[in-house]
Amino acid sequence: MRGLMQDRPLTIPTLLSRVETQFGHKRIITGGTTETVATWRAVAPRVRRLVRALESLGVPAGACVGTFAWNSQRHVELYLGIPSSGRILHTVNHRLYREQIRFIVNDAADDVLFVDRTILPVIWPLVASFDSVRHVIVMDDGGDMPLPDDPRVLDYEELLAGQADGPLETVIEDENLAASLCYTSGTTGDPKGVLYSHRSIVLHSLLLLGADVFALSERDVVAPIVPMFHVNAWGLPYAAMQSGSDLVLPGPLRAPEELVSLLSRHRVTFSAGVATVWRDLVPVLGGHDLSSLRHIACGGGAVDDALSGAYQRAVGIPLINAWGMTETSPVVTTSRLATHHDGLDGEARRLLLGSPGPAVPLTEIRVVADDGVEQPRDGQSQGELQVAGPTIASAYVGSDAGADAFTADGWLRTGDVATIDAWGYLRIVDRSKDLVKSGGEWISSVALENAVLSDPRVREAAVIGVTHPRWGERPVACVVPSEGVNLTPDDVRAYLRGRVASWWIPERVEMMTEIPKTATGKWSKQKLRQRFADTATEED
Amino acid sequence: MRGLMQDRPLTIPTLLSRVETQFGHKRIITGGTTETVATWRAVAPRVRRLVRALESLGVPAGACVGTFAWNSQRHVELYLGIPSSGRILHTVNHRLYREQIRFIVNDAADDVLFVDRTILPVIWPLVASFDSVRHVIVMDDGGDMPLPDDPRVLDYEELLAGQADGPLETVIEDENLAASLCYTSGTTGDPKGVLYSHRSIVLHSLLLLGADVFALSERDVVAPIVPMFHVNAWGLPYAAMQSGSDLVLPGPLRAPEELVSLLSRHRVTFSAGVATVWRDLVPVLGGHDLSSLRHIACGGGAVDDALSGAYQRAVGIPLINAWGMTETSPVVTTSRLATHHDGLDGEARRLLLGSPGPAVPLTEIRVVADDGVEQPRDGQSQGELQVAGPTIASAYVGSDAGADAFTADGWLRTGDVATIDAWGYLRIVDRSKDLVKSGGEWISSVALENAVLSDPRVREAAVIGVTHPRWGERPVACVVPSEGVNLTPDDVRAYLRGRVASWWIPERVEMMTEIPKTATGKWSKQKLRQRFADTATEED
Ligand SMILES: Nc1ncnc2c1ncn2[C@@H]1O[C@H](COP(=O)(O)O)[C@@H](O)[C@H]1O
Repeated sequence: MRGLMQDRPLTIPTLLSRVETQFGHKRIITGGTTETVATWRAVAPRVRRLVRALESLGVPAGACVGTFAWNSQRHVELYLGIPSSGRILHTVNHRLYREQIRFIVNDAADDVLFVDRTILPVIWPLVASFDSVRHVIVMDDGGDMPLPDDPRVLDYEELLAGQADGPLETVIEDENLAASLCYTSGTTGDPKGVLYSHRSIVLHSLLLLGADVFALSERDVVAPIVPMFHVNAWGLPYAAMQSGSDLVLPGPLRAPEELVSLLSRHRVTFSAGVATVWRDLVPVLGGHDLSSLRHIACGGGAVDDALSGAYQRAVGIPLINAWGMTETSPVVTTSRLATHHDGLDGEARRLLLGSPGPAVPLTEIRVVADDGVEQPRDGQSQGELQVAGPTIASAYVGSDAGADAFTADGWLRTGDVATIDAWGYLRIVDRSKDLVKSGGEWISSVALENAVLSDPRVREAAVIGVTHPRWGERPVACVVPSEGVNLTPDDVRAYLRGRVASWWIPERVEMMTEIPKTATGKWSKQKLRQRFADTATEED
Repeated sequence: MRGLMQDRPLTIPTLLSRVETQFGHKRIITGGTTETVATWRAVAPRVRRLVRALESLGVPAGACVGTFAWNSQRHVELYLGIPSSGRILHTVNHRLYREQIRFIVNDAADDVLFVDRTILPVIWPLVASFDSVRHVIVMDDGGDMPLPDDPRVLDYEELLAGQADGPLETVIEDENLAASLCYTSGTTGDPKGVLYSHRSIVLHSLLLLGADVFALSERDVVAPIVPMFHVNAWGLPYAAMQSGSDLVLPGPLRAPEELVSLLSRHRVTFSAGVATVWRDLVPVLGGHDLSSLRHIACGGGAVDDALSGAYQRAVGIPLINAWGMTETSPVVTTSRLATHHDGLDGEARRLLLGSPGPAVPLTEIRVVADDGVEQPRDGQSQGELQVAGPTIASAYVGSDAGADAFTADGWLRTGDVATIDAWGYLRIVDRSKDLVKSGGEWISSVALENAVLSDPRVREAAVIGVTHPRWGERPVACVVPSEGVNLTPDDVRAYLRGRVASWWIPERVEMMTEIPKTATGKWSKQKLRQRFADTATEED
């Protein structure tokens, strides 16, 4: 027998209705050359005009709508309007290599693109190669590129101004409908699309309100530094709509001084970003009052304790780690001091908060050895971390892309090597996937190796990641020149220029006569890592 | 297009798995003549044995399993085991009038009953009239009634001991499956069944973790005083499984001194109950250290400020109101101080926390005037409170019972008269349903009037509710004797004895020569209320 409860789907339009009826006075502040402040009361009608604009542009129902945008009020409008209209919000990272951007836009078949004017110089040159894009709607965030004289180009504000006010007409009846799309290059091969549903986004937003997760409240002022083109900025904009927190968004601001000033002036209480961002801010923390901060979330990689200690001293609180992936919405774990940690001293507490922590509700984690056997939760036994739950991907977009990332029983294989202790606390010990995470973004070792090997002067090449004080990790290329060739690290770097994104190019290229092999004759990346791990250069 | 997220249903077995893998060390403490302490690690295998026991007893899939039990570890086992087995947990309030209990058990067609031994004396005499019940499983909580020598009677511990250990075999695939059932007499006519689904229970449990709701955390020690036979004890046992809070359950304890001692000894941080309970504890607060309490939730009726002030003085915190109904899982609103309240002084803050507050996520509220027009959210305009959301009932059990409680667009009509302010804060101003809420339990004015009128010596009778310092409300019977009859209040009370539950019998019977009428000739309960409201007696 079915229960007799109302069949109210978990959908993004319910968030719009919530902010409007309960939090109309709460604010979205966007940094930039001119800072803007808007209330939900002012934003909600704009969202509805946006929905009408998508209709008037003839964007087909269910089509993807691409965004190339910073964290801003307008991007929040797109976060609400596109999924509420029954179309798919497709956020794209404009910092990817142009080949990847081209692949992603074409793979998703984006019908129209919304682009911040400061990002337009990166995107406009690629538009000719976007097969499906019919319009580029420019959002003027103070960029100075003149608008191309092209009928496809429209201005966001003019587009909204041209629409009538009125209620939302579309109704999302099925909470499992696709709402938003984000590609990850955190796997081998081409970037792969992760397709979130209305349901997964709403469930994830509830999880972030939990007292033991981010405890977001109406009293919070939430500043997602993590970009809105990356896993919905960890779902924080949607969570802030549930909690009614003010949102402080940096817009195109990037300079540490500007970011810290934003956090300080608006009395931000909760912020989230990757370690590289937090590291960049350290030198300027001193000059600002950051006493309002109660929680600094640091995810997308390990928290290094020296960095966390710097925050403890300068701001009075350590960094708090969270573990997640594009495929996991993303928050799967976040750390907290549980009752059984009560005996720990200050440093041990900081270390604990700097590790991933236990799984949030609804989500299950396990570590599985190579032979497929689930490992005991003893804090010692290692295996691949696998994840299951309603906010976790079941597949990538496309027939069978990356099918090997999912187990027979439907869990996501993360490619991270981990332990879990008796209290469910996760620790990441290694990464089995062939990737380097630099400044929060992925570099595929395999793709980089292939680029190096495409040089006829190279016989063997292996790329490993080594920890790096600023970027978290950086690639090191180990290169064996072809017989009789005289090759220098600079030659290798010069060859790579233009063949891969500039930030992929390794500062460090190690010339060798042979790459160490495993018993089965494969390159032993483990031996390479052992050899180069603790000698990372600091040049950047 | 559908999103590509894992199809993991929101079900009660996921809670069992969560407490076992993450919170195996956390505790359920049950008060009683002997206090018991068990960890989830010890409870989880018992839950699985219970599931096997239901199989071995041949309880049909989807059947209702009744419970007559206090708040206890065993009741928690039933909360997990019955729904996890694909059967329906049917909690029954043993304090209802026996006719109601009989109606409820037969209407639900309970297949077996689980009964605390201290409650057996109330239930056993009724068993002959329960048409569908095949077994009565007695849970020995220190009661002294000898077990009836009857093949239908089984002992809970023997039943579990007779089962093998092993994994759960049933899998709940559809989250919309019925999980639990609770009858409400908060409507006119016969009690009506509200049928919760796995989905609604899991969603509601997540809501309670929210920072602005109850903020339940692993660090909390949660003591639901509100009974587990009433709306799943506000969903607190399930929420504590999500958060990993310790649970402190009073078992059969009722004496104020025992309850306060329980809260104090176990350093309870969060507790919930109705005003009558909190009022009873006031005299004994002084002798105990209650400094661990961070949140005292008071629901099911208004918070009176004198009571809240007494807690403020004795414990250091006020009572925090919550609004809900059996039909709403129950928590729809709970109060909190938002940023726009920052200017308020201490007393104004306490008053605010003593009113219902804003709606929790996922849930919508509106007030609608008699003409069907939604009223403005101005804190002034009154109308009937209506509620919508995935944790709100869409119907009662049974073909068309109480269909008028739902609007054409699927909202629940609450029968409460309310206002909502610009920030979404709810205030209850009156009740349009003809009911009196005494000590958290309903008395039907109409049923009581009919009982009085069945006496041939009575010509007219009207029952109203007046506020009462201990019980919240008590009924007052206004009685016009038949021509020439000399009738006293004591005669009326004597006549009612045996015809209604003893706690329905009004302390106060007003003899009158005529009942005031409205313009249309109906009894004007409003005039009666005005006349008797502020002269409530304190005798009880
Ligand atoms: N916070 C509250 N303030 C005033 N009345 C309340 C409150 N909470 C519950 N009630 C009353 O209790 C009813 C629900 O009763 P029940 O279904 O027995 O839990 C509501 O419809 C209200 O009439």
